[in-house]
Amino acid sequence: MEPLIVDVHTHIYPPTYLSLLSSRSTPPLLYHPEPTERKPTPSPRLIILPSDSPSANPHADPSTLGRPLTQSYSSIPSILQFKNQHHIHTSILSLANPWLDFLSPDSAPTWAHTINAELESISRDNPGRFYFFGTLPLSAPVSDILDSINHLSSLPHCCGIILGTSGLGSGLDDPSLNPMWAALQRASLLIFIHPHYGLPSEVFGPRMTESRHVLPLSLGFTMETTIAFARMWVCGVFDEFPRLKVMLAHAGGAVGSLGDRVQSCVEHERGFYDDGLKGDRIKGPKRSMKEVLSTNVWLDGISYGATGLRTAVELVGKQKVMWGSDHPFFPPVGGSEEEEEWMSVRSNIAAVKEVFQDEEEGMRGVLGDNAVKWFRLDVPPNPKNER
Amino acid sequence: MEPLIVDVHTHIYPPTYLSLLSSRSTPPLLYHPEPTERKPTPSPRLIILPSDSPSANPHADPSTLGRPLTQSYSSIPSILQFKNQHHIHTSILSLANPWLDFLSPDSAPTWAHTINAELESISRDNPGRFYFFGTLPLSAPVSDILDSINHLSSLPHCCGIILGTSGLGSGLDDPSLNPMWAALQRASLLIFIHPHYGLPSEVFGPRMTESRHVLPLSLGFTMETTIAFARMWVCGVFDEFPRLKVMLAHAGGAVGSLGDRVQSCVEHERGFYDDGLKGDRIKGPKRSMKEVLSTNVWLDGISYGATGLRTAVELVGKQKVMWGSDHPFFPPVGGSEEEEEWMSVRSNIAAVKEVFQDEEEGMRGVLGDNAVKWFRLDVPPNPKNER
Repeated sequence: MEPLIVDVHTHIYPPTYLSLLSSRSTPPLLYHPEPTERKPTPSPRLIILPSDSPSANPHADPSTLGRPLTQSYSSIPSILQFKNQHHIHTSILSLANPWLDFLSPDSAPTWAHTINAELESISRDNPGRFYFFGTLPLSAPVSDILDSINHLSSLPHCCGIILGTSGLGSGLDDPSLNPMWAALQRASLLIFIHPHYGLPSEVFGPRMTESRHVLPLSLGFTMETTIAFARMWVCGVFDEFPRLKVMLAHAGGAVGSLGDRVQSCVEHERGFYDDGLKGDRIKGPKRSMKEVLSTNVWLDGISYGATGLRTAVELVGKQKVMWGSDHPFFPPVGGSEEEEEWMSVRSNIAAVKEVFQDEEEGMRGVLGDNAVKWFRLDVPPNPKNER
Repeated sequence: MEPLIVDVHTHIYPPTYLSLLSSRSTPPLLYHPEPTERKPTPSPRLIILPSDSPSANPHADPSTLGRPLTQSYSSIPSILQFKNQHHIHTSILSLANPWLDFLSPDSAPTWAHTINAELESISRDNPGRFYFFGTLPLSAPVSDILDSINHLSSLPHCCGIILGTSGLGSGLDDPSLNPMWAALQRASLLIFIHPHYGLPSEVFGPRMTESRHVLPLSLGFTMETTIAFARMWVCGVFDEFPRLKVMLAHAGGAVGSLGDRVQSCVEHERGFYDDGLKGDRIKGPKRSMKEVLSTNVWLDGISYGATGLRTAVELVGKQKVMWGSDHPFFPPVGGSEEEEEWMSVRSNIAAVKEVFQDEEEGMRGVLGDNAVKWFRLDVPPNPKNER
């Protein structure tokens, strides 16, 4: 029997959200190029990263900025076709970055409610094919954030929430987030931590633009997640909320390579010890990173190769790694998104098979069974039976 | 027989260099606190990172900034004692960061010559115990850099050069470096790429100072190296100089976790394909990252745990990982550097033993035999026979 595939990392820009982006003139925005003779029906351009904005690229043809918006971003039939083609049974949808981070405090709660209800309704209408991670109105007062968590707790298809790394503006180690962490821990909602802001572009140097999105997406995004998690750990968020459940995007970014070094730097930090004291640390995180990884952290399996995936499995255990596609990003280049097999999907499935070889249970776990277990998904067979 | 241990990542601040740092008022500098009743013989403070400078910490007691300068930083007898205590037979010394990056173009060549000659002389006077990586006068005109490479090629104990990531000021993907890469490739000198500049402090957020050096050293340093290597690869440095040999510090930083993702982002970058073309890429790196890792890249074994080291071995092959200590950094906290076993050393040796288990040849390779082979080290037995 072919393994059941569940996709825990897949994004959607619902039509209401796209209309919001169409109304904006600074990123995130949806840009509608004028038709020309050469391109009579130009694709709208989705401009989500500040570095892609028209103002940051004054000499560029705006119809080349960002990325073309295709049906993959918002159309349920198109997403179902993608799923069928790649034998993905169930997808846990999440609103794509930058979520609602940019909204005014007064509009954010309504938008969160609308979008969460919309994702619940998509899930309800396609039984077993869709679940979702909810979105919080982070720019709104804490009481609104807590209301939103309550709302999400009542929605039967909600598997947790997706969160950027900016928090209320100062990052995820900001103590003002404590009421939110407390509520999420109480509700036992998994927190999917996802990048958007990357790193300041100066780190990629003057030749960055030659390789377009390569460095910001491959390194900026993953390093952002890694830093956010390390800041949470170093500042004691997992000491204060020991039952918090987080899932780190993109196989945990660089935590696999660097986790032991972060722990070692904590052990060697003089500022964490009494002056001249030989003995136990008196400051810094109390629970070790290893312990936090093994109890509080889940990872998606998005690493595009066996090396990173193997490390992810070693970090958090094979039961806590769950496959993802990152759809609709990384479509086939140049070809038709709807006809071709996606190389990005293929490489992430191949990585699982390479890591587990003959160990079928582990392979099935990462590809889908782990997600079914952790999120108690109801996945009736007959995956192609779409409604 | 106990394995031979060779330390390929160990720094020295020779006395002449310390006198240079003592004469400065901006980092890098050596700060000499006034004696007080409580601290009648205060340690000089080595302030190398801008974030540690008095001007960045106007309210801090300057005698607490940076790190205390101990004998470990410059005294050969002290270094030999450390080596004997930890059974390190041979050390390939390198000038510590930030090397000569900050010097004026006219003074840099003389300093490079002086320090390289000093390291050659230390090596000659302690046969089999010391070799060294040379230092280049990067702020000087290219002709001076090439002279320095010639000088180093003539020194019998030189194993290569150590290099920061700033290059001539614009990073290691700067085409102005091509004559230097060409000369280093011709001389077959290994290039030890080492971090210093980290990441802009804003990425660590407003609570960064609470954990002092933890985030900049654990993540800033390693991400800097990772970005520098990825920039070189993406911009084609290894296409143009296919026989370049680089050793990436700290087990390659995050390359293990993120390498496959960088490759995937290159394959998915629309800007690298002809408009609408289905087929081969026409831009971007020609040689795959996997190929470059397997032929051009060496890694030190500094990861403080088995997870990162195992990944390093997988990335470049077990013959191209070589053990390092990062001495004099990460000394025992609170205790006496000269009496205690260093936890940082112990954990990096333990990682090698954990990764290789019973595979003795691999273990001996990483701990020392690989370095002997690659650098053709002459290592007479009787390691404790110091002069």
